[in-house]
Amino acid sequence: MDRQEAITESLKLVERSAVCMVGTITEDGFPNIKSIFNLKHDGFKRFWFSTNTSSRRVKQLQNDKRGCVYFLDEILGQGLMLVGTIEILQDIESKKLLWTEKSEKYYSFGTEDPDYAVLCFTAAQGNYYHELSNVDFEIK
Amino acid sequence: MDRQEAITESLKLVERSAVCMVGTITEDGFPNIKSIFNLKHDGFKRFWFSTNTSSRRVKQLQNDKRGCVYFLDEILGQGLMLVGTIEILQDIESKKLLWTEKSEKYYSFGTEDPDYAVLCFTAAQGNYYHELSNVDFEIK
Repeated sequence: MDRQEAITESLKLVERSAVCMVGTITEDGFPNIKSIFNLKHDGFKRFWFSTNTSSRRVKQLQNDKRGCVYFLDEILGQGLMLVGTIEILQDIESKKLLWTEKSEKYYSFGTEDPDYAVLCFTAAQGNYYHELSNVDFEIK
Repeated sequence: MDRQEAITESLKLVERSAVCMVGTITEDGFPNIKSIFNLKHDGFKRFWFSTNTSSRRVKQLQNDKRGCVYFLDEILGQGLMLVGTIEILQDIESKKLLWTEKSEKYYSFGTEDPDYAVLCFTAAQGNYYHELSNVDFEIK
């Protein structure tokens, strides 16, 4: 598998994934993982997710913005890990950008709910694998 | 949802998961995630996984043994994160413990393959959620 094939397959995996996993670091230096809805992305350079402002993840990111995002197709044995940084956005434009009918279940006060935050992940590096083939690539 | 229900549901989730995600920390302090086969466990205190000795994950764990293991049922909206530490085992008894017919695909020299290592994860804390309910618990 060459770099171009890895990038093509990575994009397909991102497109068909409803959820992905976000990795963050706790204040005492342990890794944490939680699934998140794959709501909006620009290729695999930038991803936007919604989360509760009061969540553990937001507290962790205020302390350390280093993160990763992982996509998995368990059946096909394909995985993509993106490593980069995550910003917490609270502006109304970002919140409106991600708002769907389903959002109300989580943020009952609508787009202006103070417990509604947007995470913007920017990837710097990727690693794609399919079965035993494995390719690293930079993301610019 | 009370603590007991969270523990009961967590165990069921672990039992029916063929794979889980392992979180580790890179040498430059970024979180990493990769899926791994859920091969053997003792409740949710201890888990044994197999991996390549030459893998990135083993190098990371030699430097920092803090880790987490995450189980997800995407359909039911259930997740379990366990946080603890991961030891790298290379003794033949541990390697034999996890060996199955499928192992040969990954470790062609059998149980004595120098590129075959066992990871032993010991959990200290758990967090189980189902939809919007969320419970933390200590693991002793």
